[in-house]
Amino acid sequence: MSANAKTAISPTRSEDYAEWYQQVIKAADLAETSPVRGCMVIKPWGYAIWERIQAELDRRFKETGHVNAYFPLFIPMSFLQKEADHVDGFAKECAVVTHSRLEAGPDGKLVPAGPLEEPLIVRPTSETIIGELFARWVQSYRDLPLLINQWANVVRWEMRTRLFLRTAEFLWQEGHTAHATAAEAMEETRKMLGVYADFADKYMAMPVVVGEKTAGERFPGAVNTFSIEAMMQDRRALQAGTSHFLGQNFSRSSNIKFLSSEGVEELAWTTSWGVSTRLVGGLIMTHSDDDGLVLPPTLAPSQVVILPVTPKEETRDAVLAACDQLAAELRQQTFGGEPLRVQVDKRDLRGGEKTWGWIKKGVPIRIEIGPRDLEKDAVCFCRRDRGAKDKQFTDRSSFVAAVSKELESIQACLHARALAFRDSNSVEVGSEEEFKAFFAQPADAGIHGGFAYAGFCCDPELEDQIAKAYKVTVRNIPLATADETPTCIFTGKPGRRVVFAKAY
Amino acid sequence: MSANAKTAISPTRSEDYAEWYQQVIKAADLAETSPVRGCMVIKPWGYAIWERIQAELDRRFKETGHVNAYFPLFIPMSFLQKEADHVDGFAKECAVVTHSRLEAGPDGKLVPAGPLEEPLIVRPTSETIIGELFARWVQSYRDLPLLINQWANVVRWEMRTRLFLRTAEFLWQEGHTAHATAAEAMEETRKMLGVYADFADKYMAMPVVVGEKTAGERFPGAVNTFSIEAMMQDRRALQAGTSHFLGQNFSRSSNIKFLSSEGVEELAWTTSWGVSTRLVGGLIMTHSDDDGLVLPPTLAPSQVVILPVTPKEETRDAVLAACDQLAAELRQQTFGGEPLRVQVDKRDLRGGEKTWGWIKKGVPIRIEIGPRDLEKDAVCFCRRDRGAKDKQFTDRSSFVAAVSKELESIQACLHARALAFRDSNSVEVGSEEEFKAFFAQPADAGIHGGFAYAGFCCDPELEDQIAKAYKVTVRNIPLATADETPTCIFTGKPGRRVVFAKAY
Repeated sequence: MSANAKTAISPTRSEDYAEWYQQVIKAADLAETSPVRGCMVIKPWGYAIWERIQAELDRRFKETGHVNAYFPLFIPMSFLQKEADHVDGFAKECAVVTHSRLEAGPDGKLVPAGPLEEPLIVRPTSETIIGELFARWVQSYRDLPLLINQWANVVRWEMRTRLFLRTAEFLWQEGHTAHATAAEAMEETRKMLGVYADFADKYMAMPVVVGEKTAGERFPGAVNTFSIEAMMQDRRALQAGTSHFLGQNFSRSSNIKFLSSEGVEELAWTTSWGVSTRLVGGLIMTHSDDDGLVLPPTLAPSQVVILPVTPKEETRDAVLAACDQLAAELRQQTFGGEPLRVQVDKRDLRGGEKTWGWIKKGVPIRIEIGPRDLEKDAVCFCRRDRGAKDKQFTDRSSFVAAVSKELESIQACLHARALAFRDSNSVEVGSEEEFKAFFAQPADAGIHGGFAYAGFCCDPELEDQIAKAYKVTVRNIPLATADETPTCIFTGKPGRRVVFAKAY
Repeated sequence: MSANAKTAISPTRSEDYAEWYQQVIKAADLAETSPVRGCMVIKPWGYAIWERIQAELDRRFKETGHVNAYFPLFIPMSFLQKEADHVDGFAKECAVVTHSRLEAGPDGKLVPAGPLEEPLIVRPTSETIIGELFARWVQSYRDLPLLINQWANVVRWEMRTRLFLRTAEFLWQEGHTAHATAAEAMEETRKMLGVYADFADKYMAMPVVVGEKTAGERFPGAVNTFSIEAMMQDRRALQAGTSHFLGQNFSRSSNIKFLSSEGVEELAWTTSWGVSTRLVGGLIMTHSDDDGLVLPPTLAPSQVVILPVTPKEETRDAVLAACDQLAAELRQQTFGGEPLRVQVDKRDLRGGEKTWGWIKKGVPIRIEIGPRDLEKDAVCFCRRDRGAKDKQFTDRSSFVAAVSKELESIQACLHARALAFRDSNSVEVGSEEEFKAFFAQPADAGIHGGFAYAGFCCDPELEDQIAKAYKVTVRNIPLATADETPTCIFTGKPGRRVVFAKAY
């Protein structure tokens, strides 16, 4: 509890948003910093959320015809250099392996030994190494499309790290595909963007703006980059997933050629797309409140937790048995086609400690069962989305019959709340003055502006200047209004309708 | 097909076993070497097998109370040094990260820059970094046992690599647990050994000898190491999984202390246990034949493949529809509690090429459906375990009704065959002469001895001499006969009953 004893997380969002985020993670036991600079440890509760994200995305990738494979962790330094933009984008922040063993030095301490002929870098992303393999695998148009995904760890030597949002090592998936035509590759790029958007919206209950990045924000080496952008509760944008149309850039540098059905040698067209453990950060900042994590039922490792209340020794066994019995019945119910995930917490802890523990971990439904509930055949349950004080009483059989609907309602409420928050913090701005005013709102406790939609000429230099002056960037050019050509609010030139925001 | 057109794989096992192994992998499209020395690329068919191994092991780990977490890829060099045996075991072969970025050198080529204050090593195994975290997490006996598993990539800079069996980078799981007492930690060590043994036997249809390693073969830093050892078709042993009782060695070096229920500060007792992508190598060498890979139904990405035979254009649509219909019905059947995995191969390829492709990929049941089968409502199916020429005819409905039993029969036959092979190549040796004679059998085409059970005094120096003289090692001291104390066949001293073999 915080100093004023009103919330479980201290500080609150409005007191200090950045610190609130760290404290939510700590209180829910999701992750922590490690002794290795910039690398995080993902703790069991956080990893279980990631496993659920993985399982659902993996299902969707396979449903759309992709297969998983695994490529080397290391990339020869020379590979990175093949694509000019790519090396510019990644050389500044990569872990370089230069030696292959350790030896005891003169003082007995270890020193690197066995220098490598060519240094290796730990993959920051795998376009260059996968391109090399694709060049071996693709000979004829019959080998296309090649639709591959990889679940892996990657490393980017970030200077300023924050758990889940920006860490030196992170876990992700990277899709890599090769196609016979530009149109097919673009279709794939857009299709996977759609998979991400639908997953974020339906599964994470996190609404996103789907659009194309401006030239300045493209993935190094891409022709077009698309993104999904979510609004966090400090009104900043989180880029939650990207999908890239790579044109023939990587095919050219990796020599991915095929013989067309007309017998002509052509370069393949490639795509790549990825989401990472950053999604967990997005999840936290979309739904959590001042009492800690709030999980949508889809992603909750436990959807229902049952807390036995055992004030007297003589009724203890009966209460525990009733809890197990209720758990068994609830596990017969389903949510999203799967049996409910239900846990009975029999730990020998004080009731308050236990209850607050599960509140802070964000479990959607908590149930308390004591001797009186047994007598009345009643259930007292609390919905996490309604805050720490929510309490509802019902009879046991009605509860069991309605639990799936209750979870659906929680999922829907979280989504509706996130959408309402985003909408109420999104504006249309018609002039530079309005733009300035919107982002110059006093940034109390690290809370910033919101989403500002405006006409913009997309000049990269101007974009840079805006970023420097206001710390605001173009998040993307939303697909929904991509055919509009409003006047640029800065230059009066013809522009695109873009969404501006401060961003993670 | 081989030169003599009798087998799909050339050379055959008896012609050149090591090369046969490479060719089976190539023909089944499981994996290949990468441009990064010692690192393999796991291709989709190979990775799908690994995913099935992962899914089942993960289920078993969770069933026994373990949770997954994720720890950093990098380990500070000084951590490795904390445990003396551990550093001796791993310092000789590790990837060392010394720089954090790349810069263009005078000739425009990249050079490592941003030297790190302390070099990092890429984890060869995670005892030291996880120990550091456990020390933070464990305060009281209430925090124990701590039962964690990690799925990860690890790197050991091997000089001589072979796909799946020995690669610089490999994928694995590593369990790490901490307990309040030695007895509990030993129970955990044995329990997970049992999980591995049962998985290998029941799920991979690969019988294993379960036992304890001798002192010389222990994991660096362990008090006791246990292993499962399988016999490959060249009669060599493959260590397929290990489970280590680490005593208080890593607790001491990492400072994992807890306050006991009596209020006394004590060092925790830890274990670790792991299996890796090496299991895929074991799977290949246990069941495959001279026509390629043979997969047990449990692990086959597709258990049944249906090949439409469409000689005439006018019956083509009817045949394809019948194949889809049969596939849908088969998917209603279950094996091991899961719906059957069935694929219809509609690719536009010559029939022979298609059929041989699936033989080489090891799919348990192949079905061909042509216009005549439609007329007769018949099914022609082939069991991969019975060789490339197997063909059986039955009516369609009987086939659908019996397909699960057929898969069970394949699973059982593969296991029985592997067990019979092992038994027929296992001997009891009562003297050094018999030992010599057994292992001195002409090693045609790289095929070696087998398993020799014998009394052995377990003297480490003698073990070394035997390894040098005969290239034979003690695989383990089988648990089944661990209480026997036979006389050592080399020294006449009291010994243990051990199993000797040449090994991977």
